[in-house]
Amino acid sequence: MSGFRGVYPAIITPMTPEGDLNEAAFREVMEFNIQAGVHGFWVAGGTGESVLLDDEENMRIAEIAADQSRGRIENIMHVGAATTARAVKLAEHAARVGVESICCVPPFFYRQSDEAIVEHYRAVGAAADLPLFVYNLPQSTGVEITPELMQKIQNGVPQLRGLKHSAVTFQNVRAFYKMGLNCLIGNSMLMLPALTIGATGCVDGPPNIAPELWVEIWNAYNDGDIARAEAAQDRASEVTGLVRQFGLHTTTKAVLSYRLGIDCGVPRAPGQPLTTDQHAALIKRVEEVGLQRATVSQAGD
Amino acid sequence: MSGFRGVYPAIITPMTPEGDLNEAAFREVMEFNIQAGVHGFWVAGGTGESVLLDDEENMRIAEIAADQSRGRIENIMHVGAATTARAVKLAEHAARVGVESICCVPPFFYRQSDEAIVEHYRAVGAAADLPLFVYNLPQSTGVEITPELMQKIQNGVPQLRGLKHSAVTFQNVRAFYKMGLNCLIGNSMLMLPALTIGATGCVDGPPNIAPELWVEIWNAYNDGDIARAEAAQDRASEVTGLVRQFGLHTTTKAVLSYRLGIDCGVPRAPGQPLTTDQHAALIKRVEEVGLQRATVSQAGD
Amino acid sequence: MSGFRGVYPAIITPMTPEGDLNEAAFREVMEFNIQAGVHGFWVAGGTGESVLLDDEENMRIAEIAADQSRGRIENIMHVGAATTARAVKLAEHAARVGVESICCVPPFFYRQSDEAIVEHYRAVGAAADLPLFVYNLPQSTGVEITPELMQKIQNGVPQLRGLKHSAVTFQNVRAFYKMGLNCLIGNSMLMLPALTIGATGCVDGPPNIAPELWVEIWNAYNDGDIARAEAAQDRASEVTGLVRQFGLHTTTKAVLSYRLGIDCGVPRAPGQPLTTDQHAALIKRVEEVGLQRATVSQAGD
Amino acid sequence: MSGFRGVYPAIITPMTPEGDLNEAAFREVMEFNIQAGVHGFWVAGGTGESVLLDDEENMRIAEIAADQSRGRIENIMHVGAATTARAVKLAEHAARVGVESICCVPPFFYRQSDEAIVEHYRAVGAAADLPLFVYNLPQSTGVEITPELMQKIQNGVPQLRGLKHSAVTFQNVRAFYKMGLNCLIGNSMLMLPALTIGATGCVDGPPNIAPELWVEIWNAYNDGDIARAEAAQDRASEVTGLVRQFGLHTTTKAVLSYRLGIDCGVPRAPGQPLTTDQHAALIKRVEEVGLQRATVSQAGD
Repeated sequence: MSGFRGVYPAIITPMTPEGDLNEAAFREVMEFNIQAGVHGFWVAGGTGESVLLDDEENMRIAEIAADQSRGRIENIMHVGAATTARAVKLAEHAARVGVESICCVPPFFYRQSDEAIVEHYRAVGAAADLPLFVYNLPQSTGVEITPELMQKIQNGVPQLRGLKHSAVTFQNVRAFYKMGLNCLIGNSMLMLPALTIGATGCVDGPPNIAPELWVEIWNAYNDGDIARAEAAQDRASEVTGLVRQFGLHTTTKAVLSYRLGIDCGVPRAPGQPLTTDQHAALIKRVEEVGLQRATVSQAGD
Repeated sequence: MSGFRGVYPAIITPMTPEGDLNEAAFREVMEFNIQAGVHGFWVAGGTGESVLLDDEENMRIAEIAADQSRGRIENIMHVGAATTARAVKLAEHAARVGVESICCVPPFFYRQSDEAIVEHYRAVGAAADLPLFVYNLPQSTGVEITPELMQKIQNGVPQLRGLKHSAVTFQNVRAFYKMGLNCLIGNSMLMLPALTIGATGCVDGPPNIAPELWVEIWNAYNDGDIARAEAAQDRASEVTGLVRQFGLHTTTKAVLSYRLGIDCGVPRAPGQPLTTDQHAALIKRVEEVGLQRATVSQAGD
Repeated sequence: MSGFRGVYPAIITPMTPEGDLNEAAFREVMEFNIQAGVHGFWVAGGTGESVLLDDEENMRIAEIAADQSRGRIENIMHVGAATTARAVKLAEHAARVGVESICCVPPFFYRQSDEAIVEHYRAVGAAADLPLFVYNLPQSTGVEITPELMQKIQNGVPQLRGLKHSAVTFQNVRAFYKMGLNCLIGNSMLMLPALTIGATGCVDGPPNIAPELWVEIWNAYNDGDIARAEAAQDRASEVTGLVRQFGLHTTTKAVLSYRLGIDCGVPRAPGQPLTTDQHAALIKRVEEVGLQRATVSQAGD
Repeated sequence: MSGFRGVYPAIITPMTPEGDLNEAAFREVMEFNIQAGVHGFWVAGGTGESVLLDDEENMRIAEIAADQSRGRIENIMHVGAATTARAVKLAEHAARVGVESICCVPPFFYRQSDEAIVEHYRAVGAAADLPLFVYNLPQSTGVEITPELMQKIQNGVPQLRGLKHSAVTFQNVRAFYKMGLNCLIGNSMLMLPALTIGATGCVDGPPNIAPELWVEIWNAYNDGDIARAEAAQDRASEVTGLVRQFGLHTTTKAVLSYRLGIDCGVPRAPGQPLTTDQHAALIKRVEEVGLQRATVSQAGD
């Protein structure tokens, strides 16, 4: 256990052609990443189609994640939901099935008071009594967790352990670090820069499709080899750029399908699949940046 | 039937002390508003705690609304949801139980492409085959429906009839009017101004608690009595100001409880109730602005 | 004198082919508007290329405006500048040459504290000791004058008389009205709507090129003829739309050149002139919306 | 000459008690920084009160900067102004007096088209024919220079050499680096992170008051000693935090006055000076973070 330090890919939720959870593919994607050296996963979060999943799907994913990893890595299970009651229910379940920690978006759609946000996290944190990560994603939730608001959460929520910081306020990494939090940078183009000002790792979708690149950043950084770390970050950022160009859910699912030789499905509607032309253009770019087909050992081998 | 012209309060979703839907109170609130002369309701929308309701609650509310109104007014039933599949299911149900029209927020949380937004509305519109209203609420959904995007929706969705316009881009009312849409202004402080540039009415939470004030704006405007309409808008805006000061769900529920002598409950968590002091301050303000206890005849008398 | 009630076009600053102030054209544009019934001018403001003028030009414009109008209308002379010292100098000069009132943008480029903004207005107001209008233009200045900040200005600046409200927060018109201010709406598509919630008039560039249309809104509104006022606003808004499509400085200068048969020049660089094709397209639209060549009587006839 | 790589403090413009340029103090501040090992200066930019200076002051500052540095460091002289004509005049002058390069904000106050922005930079670049830096400061100018817009500038302006990147879009550092530009990060809390993704240095106000701290970041980074660089950045960021707490112009002038034992004056109005209490609190913090009184050798010793 790395203590929430290192590379935590935001794992996709593979789906069958009928649009249901594809358990076998999910396990394969986990295994591919674990064998590449990742330190954990951000499960059923933004990349995992989070709010598009129903509660039963979320709970089934928690079970699979805990079962497949068997203590080899740390799962950070997303339990955020529109109501506190649903988030609490998911948090209790997550703890019961044995994930290592949970994460939760703040209340979204309706802008709530700071007090309501703290109370939401207090209830969720108490329900699981596991290390809790805040998901700082203002572009989706409409509320930015500033260091000031985080301080209120820290004062009221004993389980608070850290955050995924996906806001544009990059410099706040330092403030969260000074608060004693594990700040996992949510922009995979900025893993190395974030490490130099106190982040303890990275959570994002692109590392899910090319975990080896971000693991190399981590290793080079910890070896004190800054030139090697910079080269690794530069190569990894090419992959992030590709995901941004072709779309998060579309690209991550298509590239993992390509690399692992399985069918991870397409985004759940209202998300739209790539057209045939877009898919061809994506695969061409994948080959240009050097992502190759990967071999995954039998789990547990 | 007024043809989606006039005052359409965004009705609250009253709840029991246990946090469940309070059907009797919901019917009482509808009746109070119908007797005050409103032309319809925006049901289970933003004021109605929308995304905090589960699908079964949403469907039960649609049934009650259709049953209670018995054709006296037009219901605009909200069927928006995080996935297209859920929105389609709610739309089909709404049509089946006999509401007059539906409304739907665009995809939220994840920012979708224009094409995905149009496809979402196409599916929802086809599912109900009723007049369809777009819910333009960028502060909650993260996407503004500009006239350009609305044009794409209009091109692809034959059921499109209008919108609730709750964005700050007030001048777009004119553009939507020129497109032949029923533009219902979503800011109740701006009903009269909006009517003068082509809006056909107003949808907002505050009219739910003082429908008589907005009905008076509508009547005075239609009588061509601009001075009387201005005086009515000014008095109504006092009520809107009070709702903004004390919070949308808290205030609308508390004031309807006070005026009707019933218990409409408190906001669903993560929404937080007023403190005792806040409640006292609110009721004091309610009395100052002259909102009195109301008598509702037996439905159908 | 109308007491800052009615139509106050933001007048252009015509320039010679060499890029200098064109005094004769400026007088002609003023006269055209005065004869069309406007109640005053917003001089050397945003439409008048404000911060692109040097102080000597600004002062010469103040002199011409006062001289040409000879008390027939009210000039609101812009004296805003990057430093308080320069704004004070321009304010003193404006008072000396006999304009009826002044206006001033808040400090721009650097975001200043509320206290610094109040102090800036206090110094400028004291320098001229004329009615003072705040220019609420956050898209250019980076600071929105909210009702709360305006209250601080009102408390500290005895000359404060009103504002040009060009922020998107349209509903604040009512708040400014309740403070006893003359709120001149800065979006000419919204003159009529603004009047219904307490605005006392309109300041914008488009009325400068078609003053007759906005004067008709004002007259119809004051006659209590809401249908006629709406029709006038609708026609006027076509002209505003045309200005937005082709650009503020380019369009206002080109259309006045066309209508008055004079050469008002082009925008000062970095502003760019229309291309020949753009100019032809603009004039075609001008004819489509029915703006005709105008005849201006000799001043004072 | 370091080729626009390293630490380039944004130098203050010291003023006399009467509010005029204080030449002796300006020379002293330059010398203090040069002796601390800086690689150049960003002169008369945001920290230097830029748009609050008149053209004569700007030109005098250029002369002093060139004279005082005598080729020991690289001056990047700011020539931005509201009109292209004034910016061109300042650019010509800057080249004549011998500064090493120029920088320029894009057109501000009025939002100009991309084409107008390129043309503005083309004219300014041609006027000086020195290496040209774009000043990317959207919070003041209202326009962000994105990589796409920068590409248009690069295509049209042969003198373009780099930029000061002060926008929140930190990740664009990589894009500018890939374009072959010298990207100087404009947020001194992020010098080290920026270096790891391709920035060549830092321009900001805080390094002006504690140049030794940022020079240490640069040296440690170039020694490949990442732990030492991180410790240096952390200490430097304390100073940046202090500047943000007490205000840019106020703090930089007060701290340099304190450290050098001279009087650098106060911000030009509308900027406001610190109160006595604020000043005392600032100096207390200065001592807490360990900034000591500095000794400056006679220039040229």
